Amino acid sequence: MSRRRDTMRLGAFLYPGGHHVAAWRHPSSQADAGIDPAHYRRLAKVAEAAKFDLIFLADGVSIRGDDIDALSRTAIRYVGQFEPLTLLSHLSAVTERIGLVATASTTYNEPFHVARKFASLDHLSGGRAGWNLVTSADPREAYNFSRDSHLAHARRYARAEEFVDVVAGLWDTFEDDAFVRDREEGRFFDPAKLHVLGHEGEHFSVRGPLNVPRPPQGHPVVVQAGSSEAGKALAARTAEVIFTAQATLEDATAFYADVKGRLGRHGREPDALKILPGAFPVVGRTQAEAEDKYGALQELIHPVVGRSLLEQLAGLDLSGHPDDAPVPEASGTEGGKSRQDLLVTIARREGLTIRELYLRIAGARGHWTLIGTPARIADALQERFEAYGADGFNIMPPTLPGGLDDFATLVIPELQRRGLFRTEYEGTTLRENLGLQRPRHRRHAASRAP
Amino acid sequence: MSRRRDTMRLGAFLYPGGHHVAAWRHPSSQADAGIDPAHYRRLAKVAEAAKFDLIFLADGVSIRGDDIDALSRTAIRYVGQFEPLTLLSHLSAVTERIGLVATASTTYNEPFHVARKFASLDHLSGGRAGWNLVTSADPREAYNFSRDSHLAHARRYARAEEFVDVVAGLWDTFEDDAFVRDREEGRFFDPAKLHVLGHEGEHFSVRGPLNVPRPPQGHPVVVQAGSSEAGKALAARTAEVIFTAQATLEDATAFYADVKGRLGRHGREPDALKILPGAFPVVGRTQAEAEDKYGALQELIHPVVGRSLLEQLAGLDLSGHPDDAPVPEASGTEGGKSRQDLLVTIARREGLTIRELYLRIAGARGHWTLIGTPARIADALQERFEAYGADGFNIMPPTLPGGLDDFATLVIPELQRRGLFRTEYEGTTLRENLGLQRPRHRRHAASRAP
Repeated sequence: MSRRRDTMRLGAFLYPGGHHVAAWRHPSSQADAGIDPAHYRRLAKVAEAAKFDLIFLADGVSIRGDDIDALSRTAIRYVGQFEPLTLLSHLSAVTERIGLVATASTTYNEPFHVARKFASLDHLSGGRAGWNLVTSADPREAYNFSRDSHLAHARRYARAEEFVDVVAGLWDTFEDDAFVRDREEGRFFDPAKLHVLGHEGEHFSVRGPLNVPRPPQGHPVVVQAGSSEAGKALAARTAEVIFTAQATLEDATAFYADVKGRLGRHGREPDALKILPGAFPVVGRTQAEAEDKYGALQELIHPVVGRSLLEQLAGLDLSGHPDDAPVPEASGTEGGKSRQDLLVTIARREGLTIRELYLRIAGARGHWTLIGTPARIADALQERFEAYGADGFNIMPPTLPGGLDDFATLVIPELQRRGLFRTEYEGTTLRENLGLQRPRHRRHAASRAP
Repeated sequence: MSRRRDTMRLGAFLYPGGHHVAAWRHPSSQADAGIDPAHYRRLAKVAEAAKFDLIFLADGVSIRGDDIDALSRTAIRYVGQFEPLTLLSHLSAVTERIGLVATASTTYNEPFHVARKFASLDHLSGGRAGWNLVTSADPREAYNFSRDSHLAHARRYARAEEFVDVVAGLWDTFEDDAFVRDREEGRFFDPAKLHVLGHEGEHFSVRGPLNVPRPPQGHPVVVQAGSSEAGKALAARTAEVIFTAQATLEDATAFYADVKGRLGRHGREPDALKILPGAFPVVGRTQAEAEDKYGALQELIHPVVGRSLLEQLAGLDLSGHPDDAPVPEASGTEGGKSRQDLLVTIARREGLTIRELYLRIAGARGHWTLIGTPARIADALQERFEAYGADGFNIMPPTLPGGLDDFATLVIPELQRRGLFRTEYEGTTLRENLGLQRPRHRRHAASRAP
């Protein structure tokens, strides 16, 4: 039994054919997964049967890279797949209990659209929606939205801070019991329970009202993935789940203590925010089988893809540096700062060459890689959970559907036997299953009739 | 048998509890329809079993009105319901053949998001997506998107002209056979078949590439609803379906000839665009039963709601004008010009009072109202179809689910007996069922690698 009285939360982070960069070439993944709804319906049902808290979908509003040769050899850099909100809305029709978390950028969206679409998904799913707020690490996104250049990191976070407040305010347009639908009196909603936001800020002016009733969860669950200083500050104030990349136990416990320690400043309890680092599990019935599986995937990585991925994720320019040279200094672009720092730190600490680093990150892209038997993987997850390095994990299957099937049928039963993971959903909403409170309706200062 | 060799196309235009403004108060509608996914799943299955071409969803990104008393007494002015793209994505999981058409505004959206979401829906549904392009008639929408004022009518259409070209260009990012997914060679897509849009225009600069493979239909079907001069010009160049409000046979045939006559200028055949006027059918087994049904709905219209709806739809200020006074002059706002003109024209032609006009439009809101037996309704539809006033109709059930059940079980079998409507779907995509050609891929002038 766990020393902790709570149990793990688990996300199923679904990438089209799996998280390994060469997954689509492997027989245990489906090559056309990115545009096959049946593939995702099957994954969602497997994840729900295994009692995962949620399905997690990343997003990008650009193809991630400029090297056409490298891009054309990968399935996971947003080269061609479903848009997450439409996909999760589809999956809401074939699932009943699992949470549905989609990524949406605050930099190239409008808060009214984001508030409305996630509220709609929350109603469609009976209270299972979550919004993974990102600020767009990829500068190419700017060019798809009539901007000359990407917003700088600090500016993106300033916009995000205001954006999330506007979205929360729009979700509180109607009180929970506003829609009385009194046929006799001819009163559809109580006008005293409609509150107009009337937001006027530095980045946005949004009057409202939002034209969707208050979501079943009050607010869809707010998830964040940034681990930079600005990201942690935003998360401490507004996030309810953090998805983060922490490769070692020390990094994980330090990050956990740091973020949880910030909550009090905002009047929040430590358990109001769940920290779910990514975990990339390669499961075998024996250690040798697991290593073989991983090795087979690694062998499928094309050097062009590996180098390009490293340039992309670490913000590095590798031209002129051969595969066996040490990793050069980061160029300090305005992309996702925290991940860039992390990768270069790992390379320096372990003295990795370019090839060694790209082989390392091509699998889990900086996330925690676990290769072994179900018992050994469960040991590692348990250790990190009990050491307060995590409240659970966002599971990143190397291949799909194969890698999810492995985790669901081999690792989850082991976690359940140890009392570390649920055998039945606690509630019907994502919020209930995560153990998060339902936010009370707050009247806006500016509330008035429209 | 019809003189025409083609058969009717029918849309099922779903408003939450029905199109009649008081529908939600009637026992044959569901009061909480707007946020009940089971309600919509049932409607979609009924419409598909009846072989409707498509489900049509209107949209607005604001609550339509300023009179809080009137708003709180209605269910159909976007006061609280699902967002269309999330709802249709949900319905794509429980249907197989029916088309799914969602409205999205070109004024308060970005072309990249619109292109991507409809492409995603087209993949989710196996080629059943349609985009109803509107330019936003309601000036309140501006205030939800950090704008001081609504764009003027002409400016909105200039933006829409460019918007639709950008969207079409983004859909042609990849050629149809670009995704080779060659596991042996490690080639996911053929880089020679990726084309970057590189659009630089007056309203938008959008580089691309779109990060979704070319949709199954090539392009999702483009629908338009504007019937103003600018709307007809845009439709003649770009639309494949027009949804329009034509109350009389003369109006309908004149509109039909006008729009079809414009296609040649753009090198398009007349059958490349289907004209589907709205039809609001109140079906009874006898004429008296139909009239009673309609009368019961009309009695449920609250005067506050009727007057407010008339002000909204006709662009009128009725303050100081009692219910029994004649309809005053239109104030000439920048809303949906064509509909405003139409309503005032009707009132003047027939010498209607304010009350008479609001009772008239509260039902079908300017659309064609048909009250009668299945045979009589079929007669009227047949007459208009055979006179080339329509290629089919967008059916607006007065109540839902009751009104759709009536049409599906009583009128559609009558149309089928007359050979006017299909008994089985012709194809698997919306485009095939509508009899529209699949657009060939066009390379952009600026095509280059990203």
